[in-house]
Amino acid sequence: MTATSYFPPLRTLMGPGPSDVHPRILGAMARPTIGHLDPSFVAMMDDVKGMLQTVFQTKNQLTLPVSAPGSAGMETCFVNLIEPGEKVVVCQNGAFGGRMKENVERVGATPVMVEDEWGKAIDLNKVETALKENPEVKVLAFVHAETSTGVQSDAKALAELARKYDCLTIVDAVTSLAGTPLKVDEWGLDAVYSGTQKCLSCTPGISPITFSERAIERIKARKQKVQSWFLDLNLVMGYWGEGAKRAYHHTAPINALYAFHESLVMVHEEGVENAWTRHQQNHEVLKAGIEALGLKFLVAKEHRLPQLNAVCIPEGIDETQVRQLLLNQYNLEIGAGLGALAGKVWRIGLMGHASNLNNILLCLTALETALKAQGFKCVEGAAATAAQAELVAQGR
Amino acid sequence: MTATSYFPPLRTLMGPGPSDVHPRILGAMARPTIGHLDPSFVAMMDDVKGMLQTVFQTKNQLTLPVSAPGSAGMETCFVNLIEPGEKVVVCQNGAFGGRMKENVERVGATPVMVEDEWGKAIDLNKVETALKENPEVKVLAFVHAETSTGVQSDAKALAELARKYDCLTIVDAVTSLAGTPLKVDEWGLDAVYSGTQKCLSCTPGISPITFSERAIERIKARKQKVQSWFLDLNLVMGYWGEGAKRAYHHTAPINALYAFHESLVMVHEEGVENAWTRHQQNHEVLKAGIEALGLKFLVAKEHRLPQLNAVCIPEGIDETQVRQLLLNQYNLEIGAGLGALAGKVWRIGLMGHASNLNNILLCLTALETALKAQGFKCVEGAAATAAQAELVAQGR
Repeated sequence: MTATSYFPPLRTLMGPGPSDVHPRILGAMARPTIGHLDPSFVAMMDDVKGMLQTVFQTKNQLTLPVSAPGSAGMETCFVNLIEPGEKVVVCQNGAFGGRMKENVERVGATPVMVEDEWGKAIDLNKVETALKENPEVKVLAFVHAETSTGVQSDAKALAELARKYDCLTIVDAVTSLAGTPLKVDEWGLDAVYSGTQKCLSCTPGISPITFSERAIERIKARKQKVQSWFLDLNLVMGYWGEGAKRAYHHTAPINALYAFHESLVMVHEEGVENAWTRHQQNHEVLKAGIEALGLKFLVAKEHRLPQLNAVCIPEGIDETQVRQLLLNQYNLEIGAGLGALAGKVWRIGLMGHASNLNNILLCLTALETALKAQGFKCVEGAAATAAQAELVAQGR
Repeated sequence: MTATSYFPPLRTLMGPGPSDVHPRILGAMARPTIGHLDPSFVAMMDDVKGMLQTVFQTKNQLTLPVSAPGSAGMETCFVNLIEPGEKVVVCQNGAFGGRMKENVERVGATPVMVEDEWGKAIDLNKVETALKENPEVKVLAFVHAETSTGVQSDAKALAELARKYDCLTIVDAVTSLAGTPLKVDEWGLDAVYSGTQKCLSCTPGISPITFSERAIERIKARKQKVQSWFLDLNLVMGYWGEGAKRAYHHTAPINALYAFHESLVMVHEEGVENAWTRHQQNHEVLKAGIEALGLKFLVAKEHRLPQLNAVCIPEGIDETQVRQLLLNQYNLEIGAGLGALAGKVWRIGLMGHASNLNNILLCLTALETALKAQGFKCVEGAAATAAQAELVAQGR
């Protein structure tokens, strides 16, 4: 055991998250801690709420950061909206749909699974069939942006289907928030959770959530208490609600919220629509390079997340060795495949602050070197050249 | 709504937590984020575990920081160790015993309450009666250091009682860890949770826990899955367990863990026994001053927590006005009373880095000014003089 100060290496984070955190956000995190009931802190909480509403594109009053990582945000949605004995339609086309299933079961409810292949978008027809066959279902749960595969599903159409069958929606937007269009009010989503360590470029540990009025009504009409005291929104609202009088619930993670606040200020400065465009354009630049290398994407063009690129590992390549070379030689982290895709894809993140040209060029060059080291055939420098050409084509 | 960077005021934090965070810890928090599966981060996790074992005075393998505040640490203990339909003896002598009751109920179990007055230590005789009368009970839950009252109960004797009746113990050590003796192995405690924002002087948001082998056996023998996916220790252990192969469970709050690591390094440098002594000595200095002011402590001497001083509000004093004057004029935060003690006591914290002479002198001077402003009679400067005299008597 070592008991001396820890200094992390300087990495470039192009995995599935955390993404590179902007120095402004790190700086905010180190500001002096104050009390969670301090009037100054309470005023800051109001700004966090307002900015978060803009990023989620919602007027939902119940919009706040849960004091724990994205998986606790997911759990917040399920434990508050579902009661034991109920049935929930859960779409699974990757790892996080599977985690939703676990959440439903642990609430004492029954998941009705709608499964699609990993790497494919959620099939609307299958969902409609499940909703039709299970009229007692009151909630449809799905992942907007599957972090395990790089697929985005049609959240708007799924929410329409849910309304048609009188269901609320629980939506995983961990990787989509601030990276690709997400319009909570326009699409009529009911309970949405996200994370800070993806397209917000913030440190991990906080989960932004937003709940519609219909979702709040459902919570208020519950027969049983929420099974988690820590995640019970009836109690959390007492602290994050309106007015100067905030009831103590738990001690908020003050400095993590400073960082989260700063990340929202930065999105606000750029404009959330501009952030979506930047993510899309940078994806196109990376894509040009990846294809020039001779590599293929897992996901069909129309369902690809610009911020999370699942790239198929060519036959005969030792993928672990590639990631190790990237990490050890370039201090560059890209993600391995998860679950059904372990060993089959790399996940290259272009999220938030990390979605920039320098990172793209570094990644393409490093990948080319690592692949060539294993005898992979590709034209020298073609990737970087193609990326630059795409950049010019975009008029940048 | 304001959407500009937030700069908190510089406060001195002498409430019930968060306490003043040392600049070294704030600095650690701002170090560059790396991945939660990065080999360098995984090595740091091992050091966190080792140092935390020392602070808890335990060899328990299952010793780790939960990625959420202390109330999630509490919930971790209850959801993992208790199953629906069971009975649990819960001691309540303040706000946090009441929260334990809520936790037991939300697991679907029945709390058998042993109640003591707020401000009094837990009565061992009452606990023994409850255990004797309920032989089916398998867990005794109690608060070692009640943050709402400033009382410490006899954790060693309570654990002995528990063993006599074949019960495991769940122990709230949120405020005691690193501030007053807490000896997990010597006392035979089974599931202990704490917080970072008290005597570790760290930012809030993380909950250190430790589980004995007997507690782990209980978890492994569960009939039902743990109701929380996020807090299921079977899964969390896959990430925090032994060896280089860590299974992804959730994204750890990387920077919060840098800060936690640094706080443990600082305790390690001082020595945990020395930290206990410092807290005790500084309490005596504050006490000399408080009594010279003519104020009284809520808690009997032998049960007082040195790090959390519940001071009775003199008759006729507007306590809110006092706290506001302290905050606005001196940037000094002390705590209000909670629950049954609202309006009756102030809670003056001397925790971690904030347990120092400068803070004590500031607090005494500011309190004297605030009380005199309301016509309270006290000898000018007597508090500071008495504090200095105690300091000399201690040979410091």
